[in-house]
Amino acid sequence: MNFNAWSCPLPLRDSPTITLGHGGGGSLSAELVEHLFAPAFRNPALDDLGDAAVLEVPPGRLAMSTDSYVVRPLFFPGGCIGDLAVNGTVNDLAMAGATPLYLSAGFILEEGLAMAKLGGVVDRMAAAARDAGVRVVTGDTKVVDRGHGDELFINTAGVGVIPEGLRVGPSLARPGDIVLVSGTLGDHGMAIMSVREGLAFESVIESDSAPLNGLVQALLAAAPGAVHVLRDPTRGGAASTLNEIARASRVGVLLDERALPVNPAVQAACEMLGMDPIYVANEGKMIAIVAREAADAALAALRAHPLGARAAIIGEVTAAQPGRLMARTAIGGTRVIAMQLGEQLPRIC
Amino acid sequence: MNFNAWSCPLPLRDSPTITLGHGGGGSLSAELVEHLFAPAFRNPALDDLGDAAVLEVPPGRLAMSTDSYVVRPLFFPGGCIGDLAVNGTVNDLAMAGATPLYLSAGFILEEGLAMAKLGGVVDRMAAAARDAGVRVVTGDTKVVDRGHGDELFINTAGVGVIPEGLRVGPSLARPGDIVLVSGTLGDHGMAIMSVREGLAFESVIESDSAPLNGLVQALLAAAPGAVHVLRDPTRGGAASTLNEIARASRVGVLLDERALPVNPAVQAACEMLGMDPIYVANEGKMIAIVAREAADAALAALRAHPLGARAAIIGEVTAAQPGRLMARTAIGGTRVIAMQLGEQLPRIC
Repeated sequence: MNFNAWSCPLPLRDSPTITLGHGGGGSLSAELVEHLFAPAFRNPALDDLGDAAVLEVPPGRLAMSTDSYVVRPLFFPGGCIGDLAVNGTVNDLAMAGATPLYLSAGFILEEGLAMAKLGGVVDRMAAAARDAGVRVVTGDTKVVDRGHGDELFINTAGVGVIPEGLRVGPSLARPGDIVLVSGTLGDHGMAIMSVREGLAFESVIESDSAPLNGLVQALLAAAPGAVHVLRDPTRGGAASTLNEIARASRVGVLLDERALPVNPAVQAACEMLGMDPIYVANEGKMIAIVAREAADAALAALRAHPLGARAAIIGEVTAAQPGRLMARTAIGGTRVIAMQLGEQLPRIC
Repeated sequence: MNFNAWSCPLPLRDSPTITLGHGGGGSLSAELVEHLFAPAFRNPALDDLGDAAVLEVPPGRLAMSTDSYVVRPLFFPGGCIGDLAVNGTVNDLAMAGATPLYLSAGFILEEGLAMAKLGGVVDRMAAAARDAGVRVVTGDTKVVDRGHGDELFINTAGVGVIPEGLRVGPSLARPGDIVLVSGTLGDHGMAIMSVREGLAFESVIESDSAPLNGLVQALLAAAPGAVHVLRDPTRGGAASTLNEIARASRVGVLLDERALPVNPAVQAACEMLGMDPIYVANEGKMIAIVAREAADAALAALRAHPLGARAAIIGEVTAAQPGRLMARTAIGGTRVIAMQLGEQLPRIC
């Protein structure tokens, strides 16, 4: 963890930790905005500091999405709550086929949070926004009394523009379509779990936290009109996402278990903890369901992008078994992959 | 408190409280969405249940705003965290001159929260959205383990469209302009405080939580081109809001202390607790700064609206004392009204 990039200006140095006053709407709140948030997220819309940001948006349909982030620990191999909060909402917009443009950021801070920790998170959040090509244009900070929060929760909401004529959505899978994944499964969830459980492997498991909007653009360009469904398998993993698609589209989804890409360290950690990578969360992967004739072009486009190097065709959409996710197993059988009931990994995002 | 309006369907009745699984992205999460959030907020964009809502937006500049809500207690005279979360964001958009259209809603629930309490909040949130004429189009739920949250935090973000040619903002006040307020000051903050402190008065102090978009439309129609600044004085009260405007516009603001409308019960509670209503939060009032020649028409338009019956002219903008808020006192002197330093009333919104 390196907070050096964030140089804390004088007024904040006087307060090494967050106090209730930083959420009170008075001078302490104003200092936090002026000396921390505004410099980190600097852009013309934010600099107005009005109640709402005023934005220029090109014509087209708008996509809007939100997520709150409560991950523990705040920093983990491959990322922190800050970049996660940007990438997660960017990816939700990208999955609607939208070009993500603007984010809001709401912080719920616990009294006593170290100012340097907040600075480190905000710094990485700003870097993630730059990487994804989006602007954080409006925000809010609340402080809760000690013992009534957990250091730092972040909510982001985002808007983006959907190009004319583009239609992707979880209900648009059709029998015969091909199912692709953009890379290895389970990295984010197992990165968090291996930190929590103190597991050590030959290589550190890193979160895959990344913005997928560039990868989506590459895919849409390579298979115009042929991309039916885009979803990022976060909480509940690929199993939950594919179950939701099967239900929404009233189709079956049949996976080839041997085709699922999984990093060896993730596989080992899953075996040790009795988990299945298909249920484990990802934060930089997507499922794409495309027309059969476009599958090869789609796969090539994904593999040509740095975030899709390990992309694979993992299954197909069927008319049989509508609403169900099935898998051909390594030994030649077929099993149902149910939606998980509750929480496999609490607070992984 | 009456939760009867919300009839809890069977699957949720089986879980009288929130468990970690309700935030896990599996079947329990899906049930919460399908049986609680989706029916309450029902609208075409939400029914897709994709990662992002797809919205039709008329041409124009977009306003975007966000706020998190951490108020204690969750229910108070005149409202609850649910209507507050809708009205607060609606008002932030309205203060940019925008017509609020769409909201997102992010819930951070503490394990053990009573399902009926969540249902009651969501129910009032949906009613507030209908009253304000906005749609909740996308959402997210996270659950944190017991002792790491405080029952229920809500974040809302909103977008709205700003009519062509309209320009209002905190930096647009000009010397000679007139300052109006749409009604009594301090009701929300003192409603919360009187519950917390167990104060009893002849009449209960009720929060003024209300959506101001209709009032803004009436004002803009009555004084076209003459409305320079709109702000809702929430945390930090009118004192903080007017200080911010004075700084942003590099002007002085001179109030007439005797003109400030305050409910007698709020006045009494403030005196008992050693507070000044000008620093106390409002959730259904606005400050409007208008060109001098339009002041009478603006006042008449505010007073003609149910939410502006007690509107008043409270001061003027000056070239002298730029960046400062001053008040003529009841005994004829002049005092500086500084921005408060920290938190006068913690967790009032």
